[in-house]
Amino acid sequence: MNNFIFQNPTKLVFGKGQINLLSELIPDDANLMITFGGGSVTKNGVYNQVIDALKGRNYIEFWGIEPNPHVETIRKAVKQGKDNNIDFLLAVGGGSVLDGTKLIAAGIASEEDSWDIVLKGHADKQIHYASVLTLPATGSEMNTAAVITRSETQEKFGFGGFYPQFSILDPEVTYSLPPHQIACGLADTFTHVLEQYLTTPNQSKIMDRWAEGVLQTVKEIAPDIISGNRNYELMAEFMLSATLALNDFIRMGVTQDWSTHMIGHELTAIHGLTHAHTLAIVMPSTMRVLKHQKHGKLLQFGERVFDITEGSEQERIDKTIEATEEFYRSLGLTTRLSEEGIGNETIEKIVKRFNERNASYGENSNVTGAVAREILVSSL
Amino acid sequence: MNNFIFQNPTKLVFGKGQINLLSELIPDDANLMITFGGGSVTKNGVYNQVIDALKGRNYIEFWGIEPNPHVETIRKAVKQGKDNNIDFLLAVGGGSVLDGTKLIAAGIASEEDSWDIVLKGHADKQIHYASVLTLPATGSEMNTAAVITRSETQEKFGFGGFYPQFSILDPEVTYSLPPHQIACGLADTFTHVLEQYLTTPNQSKIMDRWAEGVLQTVKEIAPDIISGNRNYELMAEFMLSATLALNDFIRMGVTQDWSTHMIGHELTAIHGLTHAHTLAIVMPSTMRVLKHQKHGKLLQFGERVFDITEGSEQERIDKTIEATEEFYRSLGLTTRLSEEGIGNETIEKIVKRFNERNASYGENSNVTGAVAREILVSSL
Repeated sequence: MNNFIFQNPTKLVFGKGQINLLSELIPDDANLMITFGGGSVTKNGVYNQVIDALKGRNYIEFWGIEPNPHVETIRKAVKQGKDNNIDFLLAVGGGSVLDGTKLIAAGIASEEDSWDIVLKGHADKQIHYASVLTLPATGSEMNTAAVITRSETQEKFGFGGFYPQFSILDPEVTYSLPPHQIACGLADTFTHVLEQYLTTPNQSKIMDRWAEGVLQTVKEIAPDIISGNRNYELMAEFMLSATLALNDFIRMGVTQDWSTHMIGHELTAIHGLTHAHTLAIVMPSTMRVLKHQKHGKLLQFGERVFDITEGSEQERIDKTIEATEEFYRSLGLTTRLSEEGIGNETIEKIVKRFNERNASYGENSNVTGAVAREILVSSL
Repeated sequence: MNNFIFQNPTKLVFGKGQINLLSELIPDDANLMITFGGGSVTKNGVYNQVIDALKGRNYIEFWGIEPNPHVETIRKAVKQGKDNNIDFLLAVGGGSVLDGTKLIAAGIASEEDSWDIVLKGHADKQIHYASVLTLPATGSEMNTAAVITRSETQEKFGFGGFYPQFSILDPEVTYSLPPHQIACGLADTFTHVLEQYLTTPNQSKIMDRWAEGVLQTVKEIAPDIISGNRNYELMAEFMLSATLALNDFIRMGVTQDWSTHMIGHELTAIHGLTHAHTLAIVMPSTMRVLKHQKHGKLLQFGERVFDITEGSEQERIDKTIEATEEFYRSLGLTTRLSEEGIGNETIEKIVKRFNERNASYGENSNVTGAVAREILVSSL
């Protein structure tokens, strides 16, 4: 186990009717801006719940944080926040609204341009922010990371900052989510765990168990959810699993990969594919290309999550990779670039970008442009 | 899943050499008192590591917090703290030093007598405190709870307060622990999980997996540790598992039991048996007496932790309870009251105490004096 320092101070407020607690959770003297996406919260009742809970409080609203939030939009929100002396942000939405709000929080606290903060990779300061989460997927509600897109250059990069003050997770608000978003949320959760788990074996028994626990849970609940079932217990498991998949709880003392994410971000930036959909396409290929490096963990993952125990080690690894791809397909997602009309031209564009920034991702820092090409070709 | 609010802000500083970070972790302007137990830290080098790390800082030392810390000792520390305007405490030791320090932190912040704080069940205020942990067992390094003994009346009760600012966990400091303390630490960790897990089934799939993950890990590492192996990876798994067993991470949205602990505290208060040793004696009996109520969870526990899958449900449950008792015995602990010379007189004393306070512990609030008698008789 490697040395580590862990501290996650976010207050997780989970369950039915918890949006009612908003007024207690936000300091009385906060100068509040509430941030939203495109308007689904006005249809599913979440907007009204939030507004009712904040009756009598002063706040302004900022609307229009898009999926894969654009820095161009964030800059507008930062200006509005500064003009109004905003010192507390409440994001109401999914991971994109949250990620955008993290950059707004950093932008308001700083004199730097928002894209410069993203390129620097971390925010030195952020005003306080919190969330009412509407889509289980990114884990952004309980971590420090955010991913931002610069639309004019088709670039997408992440940065880190501070944790949310609190996040309210009411599984009931997920019932009305479109099936594709649900599928992507499940794929995102599953892949987040794999990025922290499918690395070098024997780093931590207890972290392995916890990572496998999230994977087993998502695998167990996914068929019911995909079939359209929306009961509370099921969506509660999904929502909590998505948060626990990426809130630093399963990465104590272990290395991480994230090369699938870095390749996936390029596919989103260039083609607009939904983030988690890119992961469903790239992750099985990452496994295929790096199966020697990930040998031990692939065997363990196959045995403990997919009950694959028969055959030679090589056969079990191949079956595990097939089962992973099949899991993503069972969610209704495609897993091949060709199915999305993406071919060699895009692959070469991504390789060029990786090479230009001397990319070397993954737990062994060996996913360069050349390896990214192998992975993407394997996804065709 | 029940509604819940989770927030654990303790900074966990884990690994080799991390005691060196003490000076960075404690605020420069802190008026510091360091609290210790009986002196083992002077033999194993931890005292010197702490003092070296704090070179140039002002502090006072308080020595002599005993196992099952006595309120009588704590009162002395509180007086010394108040006399010296102490505003930050650093506990250096195991769970008892930590628990005692939690009450010192509450006593210094309050005008109340320390035992009144314990009887009230919670501290309204505490001065900041932190720890350098030397014994993996109680989880006190990352939770709000503490258990205190009043020696003059042979009473032992818990209270809750605030989380430690930070805890430093260096697995290397555990190498020199006496075998009995190691065995008790493993038993304590295992039982903490069972108190939060072995309740009503189907409350949370993901919490079940995480609880089972700690149980599986402890079961896997215990034989090696008990055989005398002290390698770093092994002790790191043990130390991290002990913390994760009782830092609120595995209890989100689920009910808890704790009746074994309440009975065990009486055995410690009356007979001085080591805390975890009482758990090894009581837990198998709690399972036997409440096996109908805990039916579903016993089956799941048996299957997932002890690989018990053969036989009728009743047979599997009986095998699971036997396996649990055998696990405690494999640590070198006795599991029967008679082995410790404890008989009916003590049982009746405990029943009387339970009845006097109208006790009704456990996830269904049905462990009364009468049920405690059944459990203790089953432990004879």
